[in-house]
Amino acid sequence: MEIKRKDGRLANQLRPIKVELDYLKYAAGSCLLEMGETRVVCAVMVEEKVPPFLKDTGTGWVSAEYSLLPYATTTRVPRSSSQSGRSQEIQRMIGRSLRGVTVLKALGERTLWVDCDVLQADGGTRTAAVTGAFLSLTMCLFRLHRAGQVKLPVLRDYLAGISVGVVQGQPLLDLDYSEDSVAAVDFNVVMTGRGELVEIQGTGEGRPFSREELERLLNLAGEGIKKIIAMERSLLGEDKALLFGQ
Amino acid sequence: MEIKRKDGRLANQLRPIKVELDYLKYAAGSCLLEMGETRVVCAVMVEEKVPPFLKDTGTGWVSAEYSLLPYATTTRVPRSSSQSGRSQEIQRMIGRSLRGVTVLKALGERTLWVDCDVLQADGGTRTAAVTGAFLSLTMCLFRLHRAGQVKLPVLRDYLAGISVGVVQGQPLLDLDYSEDSVAAVDFNVVMTGRGELVEIQGTGEGRPFSREELERLLNLAGEGIKKIIAMERSLLGEDKALLFGQ
Amino acid sequence: MEIKRKDGRLANQLRPIKVELDYLKYAAGSCLLEMGETRVVCAVMVEEKVPPFLKDTGTGWVSAEYSLLPYATTTRVPRSSSQSGRSQEIQRMIGRSLRGVTVLKALGERTLWVDCDVLQADGGTRTAAVTGAFLSLTMCLFRLHRAGQVKLPVLRDYLAGISVGVVQGQPLLDLDYSEDSVAAVDFNVVMTGRGELVEIQGTGEGRPFSREELERLLNLAGEGIKKIIAMERSLLGEDKALLFGQ
Amino acid sequence: MEIKRKDGRLANQLRPIKVELDYLKYAAGSCLLEMGETRVVCAVMVEEKVPPFLKDTGTGWVSAEYSLLPYATTTRVPRSSSQSGRSQEIQRMIGRSLRGVTVLKALGERTLWVDCDVLQADGGTRTAAVTGAFLSLTMCLFRLHRAGQVKLPVLRDYLAGISVGVVQGQPLLDLDYSEDSVAAVDFNVVMTGRGELVEIQGTGEGRPFSREELERLLNLAGEGIKKIIAMERSLLGEDKALLFGQ
Amino acid sequence: MEIKRKDGRLANQLRPIKVELDYLKYAAGSCLLEMGETRVVCAVMVEEKVPPFLKDTGTGWVSAEYSLLPYATTTRVPRSSSQSGRSQEIQRMIGRSLRGVTVLKALGERTLWVDCDVLQADGGTRTAAVTGAFLSLTMCLFRLHRAGQVKLPVLRDYLAGISVGVVQGQPLLDLDYSEDSVAAVDFNVVMTGRGELVEIQGTGEGRPFSREELERLLNLAGEGIKKIIAMERSLLGEDKALLFGQ
Amino acid sequence: MEIKRKDGRLANQLRPIKVELDYLKYAAGSCLLEMGETRVVCAVMVEEKVPPFLKDTGTGWVSAEYSLLPYATTTRVPRSSSQSGRSQEIQRMIGRSLRGVTVLKALGERTLWVDCDVLQADGGTRTAAVTGAFLSLTMCLFRLHRAGQVKLPVLRDYLAGISVGVVQGQPLLDLDYSEDSVAAVDFNVVMTGRGELVEIQGTGEGRPFSREELERLLNLAGEGIKKIIAMERSLLGEDKALLFGQ
Repeated sequence: MEIKRKDGRLANQLRPIKVELDYLKYAAGSCLLEMGETRVVCAVMVEEKVPPFLKDTGTGWVSAEYSLLPYATTTRVPRSSSQSGRSQEIQRMIGRSLRGVTVLKALGERTLWVDCDVLQADGGTRTAAVTGAFLSLTMCLFRLHRAGQVKLPVLRDYLAGISVGVVQGQPLLDLDYSEDSVAAVDFNVVMTGRGELVEIQGTGEGRPFSREELERLLNLAGEGIKKIIAMERSLLGEDKALLFGQ
Repeated sequence: MEIKRKDGRLANQLRPIKVELDYLKYAAGSCLLEMGETRVVCAVMVEEKVPPFLKDTGTGWVSAEYSLLPYATTTRVPRSSSQSGRSQEIQRMIGRSLRGVTVLKALGERTLWVDCDVLQADGGTRTAAVTGAFLSLTMCLFRLHRAGQVKLPVLRDYLAGISVGVVQGQPLLDLDYSEDSVAAVDFNVVMTGRGELVEIQGTGEGRPFSREELERLLNLAGEGIKKIIAMERSLLGEDKALLFGQ
Repeated sequence: MEIKRKDGRLANQLRPIKVELDYLKYAAGSCLLEMGETRVVCAVMVEEKVPPFLKDTGTGWVSAEYSLLPYATTTRVPRSSSQSGRSQEIQRMIGRSLRGVTVLKALGERTLWVDCDVLQADGGTRTAAVTGAFLSLTMCLFRLHRAGQVKLPVLRDYLAGISVGVVQGQPLLDLDYSEDSVAAVDFNVVMTGRGELVEIQGTGEGRPFSREELERLLNLAGEGIKKIIAMERSLLGEDKALLFGQ
Repeated sequence: MEIKRKDGRLANQLRPIKVELDYLKYAAGSCLLEMGETRVVCAVMVEEKVPPFLKDTGTGWVSAEYSLLPYATTTRVPRSSSQSGRSQEIQRMIGRSLRGVTVLKALGERTLWVDCDVLQADGGTRTAAVTGAFLSLTMCLFRLHRAGQVKLPVLRDYLAGISVGVVQGQPLLDLDYSEDSVAAVDFNVVMTGRGELVEIQGTGEGRPFSREELERLLNLAGEGIKKIIAMERSLLGEDKALLFGQ
Repeated sequence: MEIKRKDGRLANQLRPIKVELDYLKYAAGSCLLEMGETRVVCAVMVEEKVPPFLKDTGTGWVSAEYSLLPYATTTRVPRSSSQSGRSQEIQRMIGRSLRGVTVLKALGERTLWVDCDVLQADGGTRTAAVTGAFLSLTMCLFRLHRAGQVKLPVLRDYLAGISVGVVQGQPLLDLDYSEDSVAAVDFNVVMTGRGELVEIQGTGEGRPFSREELERLLNLAGEGIKKIIAMERSLLGEDKALLFGQ
Repeated sequence: MEIKRKDGRLANQLRPIKVELDYLKYAAGSCLLEMGETRVVCAVMVEEKVPPFLKDTGTGWVSAEYSLLPYATTTRVPRSSSQSGRSQEIQRMIGRSLRGVTVLKALGERTLWVDCDVLQADGGTRTAAVTGAFLSLTMCLFRLHRAGQVKLPVLRDYLAGISVGVVQGQPLLDLDYSEDSVAAVDFNVVMTGRGELVEIQGTGEGRPFSREELERLLNLAGEGIKKIIAMERSLLGEDKALLFGQ
């Protein structure tokens, strides 16, 4: 028998997703992404410079920053904590995920700075940020391509992230905050359009979990990501396909 | 003969203003305010505590923070500079302005934290932040009033801010970034519904200015603020009037 | 009927000013300035380098820092707070004021660092700092001129600052701390030798103020600044006139 | 055909492990742990206080810090970077892992501070730190138990960590630095004595990875952890079994 | 044959000393002390609180801070470096020296904060600071005594500091900067009115030094300190003698 | 009659010293040094760059850092305090001491970074660090010599440090923490193989001390250092003699 979710969703059902592409004027790519009540602004800006370890290699870099705005949660988060350990952990994960599908050689020697600011946090902010960051990155790369500044293909595949977890013994897709805060097992999964994994972070802080649970959670995540990537494809439009060498 | 403004505005014409009240779920009062291409998120959160110098006085406090998000301008602003001298100067000005119309005694011993984050900066961000902060503060105070937590009146008057400046010898209202960056004289003005001044900051970094210019700039600012406050009244609705003891 | 000032001054009377020019050995220009019990050390040092945004423009820069020494007030101010928001706001104002009368092109590609340290704070520290900084800057520019390192004119006009405010309904010139701490309206004004304005900062944190009050306060400030600039002229001596192209 | 490992190990072979328990005099539990050339000092100290969110709940806390000493790698790491994003990510993972097997209620209102300092880094430092931290934690809890300060059971299970990865298409156990730096897929796995998972972090920064690869990597990790936990049991001795309620 | 000193002094001659006691209005004790061109402001402020390790012991504390103002040397010292390692080393030495002659039990549970700011640095700033700090401390303690807030004796002895060093093989007293910068051996010595040592810091960064040289340097320092303490006695006046139990 | 030392040592007896040379794999020179229960890791790493003030002079530099690891003392020291004033004072002393016997010209334009981390602190950590740092430096220089990268002689003499102090009126050599914490007078002495002094830091925070006490303490320190340097010679071996030009 299934657990009853607060908002009436099925265990394997995503929250409604809303995306406003090119949300910002000065960023090279950006969006405002909402998953249920979670709301994230993602923006990509281009710097014609790479970190020291890449100098004179012809290779580019993608670097991400993540921040919870002070009013994103029920209790105000002082700005000084915005670069907390949690934020650092998350922004490293976003950066790795994006680099996992980007052809850095094709970028040329430039850095794409990806900022993800959470306006409202109702669970799943880091995976929403991965999805929003990927959309913004794609828009940015399309502009760079139009300006003749990147080689093709510059992206290996589509990318999206989702959270899954076990609540009262039941694996659930896309946890909101009320679910996340009582989950015994908590996973963040990032996958590609071909269904391969790019990043998986799972923790059983409440209790250890078995290989079988892991399987079920990854299946659930896979289902969710497939739907999100379908949304991404239609949102980005067919003209972006050439970035992927298609 | 008049200078021709990039967007066709008259010298004494405001940019279009758009406000989404209660933009955020967890804040006690909030809005997304746009003036032309300038876009600011304002949020007020309540902390049941006052700074040390107010302890056991029965009086409350209003404290503001202002930050430029990294993608708000054409060149990315590193997050570490978000608490720059400029931001500190601005947030002190926002705080003073709000306290200038708030009856702190009526607040009780609590602090209202007002956050103003600039999503997009096309000039006039600090005065847009004053206006947005005032709207959010009013929404927050209305909720506190409904919950029986503040005395009335808790606000002395309506409040709004606007920038004015002299460009190519011509006083202009509500400068956008392209105007602001070449202005010889630059003013930020905060006024009340009765047309009194709460804060005035003027600087002639390009060249000194005369008392006559000051007069003309304040007249221009007064015109603009009158229109903004009319918009505030209609936006907030009549039921908020009691906060002002009306 | 006039308010009675603690030290017997008239409403439009300055405190006694004492200046020791070239107070310091290593600075290119410096002074110890006292206005009543307020005491500020100002020093200018030359760096043969400009901030990045001015590189290769042939133009120089003036940058100010302001700090309250720990023993400047009745309660010790920890050193860590010396770069507080208040200090940042003030040093930005000092920098803008000085740049307002300096011909940056004539400076050549160098930065003049102006430090203002308050040894004793009895009100009006920021405007005393503007006056002391201007005197030190002039001494420094005179030395640079003698060494053939700046073009003439390098200064547009004399400069001084003063505070004015409304205490118990009475506009007062040059507030000491006991007056400042109860002032309903509080102004800092920076003007030139020709009586033009360079910077005006006014705040009605206690209550809003009218245009008429603004007029009266600016008149009062203008009177005071005229006297201070007369003192500056006599102190600096006639040989400095050539810096102003006279 | 198998890849040839630099040190002649089989793909599923651990590096030699050496542990010196109670390595430090003042810590309540500590060890020096070596896995091949990787060398970590782990120490647990007791503070009779909990973080604010646990006050008056009767529940304790385990908090971990991880740091790379400046001479741990071939190029010196400045001390200021020791609290880098990478360190923060790692210490959060160590803390979660330890809390995953600790009965926090049984601890009483105290915090166990776990420090992990890497003297020498030749790959696998974070999982070596998990193993060393668990051993130190157990020694500390045994002392607290002897002093009558914790309830039993205070540990749910044994715990160890190991890294696995894919190098030149070959899944390998316990990567050294030369292997880790060329791995396409990189996993850190923390498991219990019963073979359940507590933490799994996998990233395909080089390229995405399939569910099958994930399976094989987890099998490899499981084998390795089984051996490490056998070592832990014999090292800790039978008298520690009662901490686990056995 | 003796080395010729720039200012014509003998090897064992002090620079002229000038002291302005009670230099500051808000500090409980203060002075402006000049030794030749070195100029230091010292101030003592009272806080009715002690550091945690002294709570409820009835014992007081003396804590010193030392800072080089940005214009104190020929090249401007950025403010951020004012809490450099050098400053920290020096302020710890000043604090220890003062505590060495203060009867902390007699102080009661309060902290005396001693600030030493160097306006102009021409060598010997740290020992000038010790002397100036001692004078300020004595003035402060005299006021506390008058107010009935300390027991007597509260000071064990007079205190002063001086630098000595070896330049071109010649031991010299009270080095100015031009001497200090070429000294092979460099000593800072703090002694009491009875000629006992409180602090000695000697370093042979240029070359090691012998026990004989140490003897000669300490003799030289002893001579100098005797003179400084005679000056202190006459400056402080006979009424201060009771602080020392005389 | 002599004071009885906790561990049965005579007043002029050192604690047992144990050194493991080349303790670390990646450092160019390193050791683990134990003096009784005090345990310090010292490591030297080479950077092919000098601080700005030495650029293009052909001269090298030696820079030291000292840190107390969080578990080094009975109460945990938060990592943030690891760069405390005390640490800064100590690392400056270690750096000066090493430079006192190093021929910086012979080093070439490179910096030797010397890190000293205290694993366990039972008194005398800073002088143990000097001794350990000297041993590590010598090993590093020997490697640089073998690689033909330094001129000879590159060291002027052997170097070691020791603490001495007065406990209950009795001068003692090599104080442990229980002795150090009650010592009235406290000295750290660094001497060379020829018995000359490089650094002496003495403080009478408990009470002033006489010249006679100073003599006795330095004699005691001299005895101890002679023994430590004999140990260093035998440990380093005869082949290192050429670094000293022997």
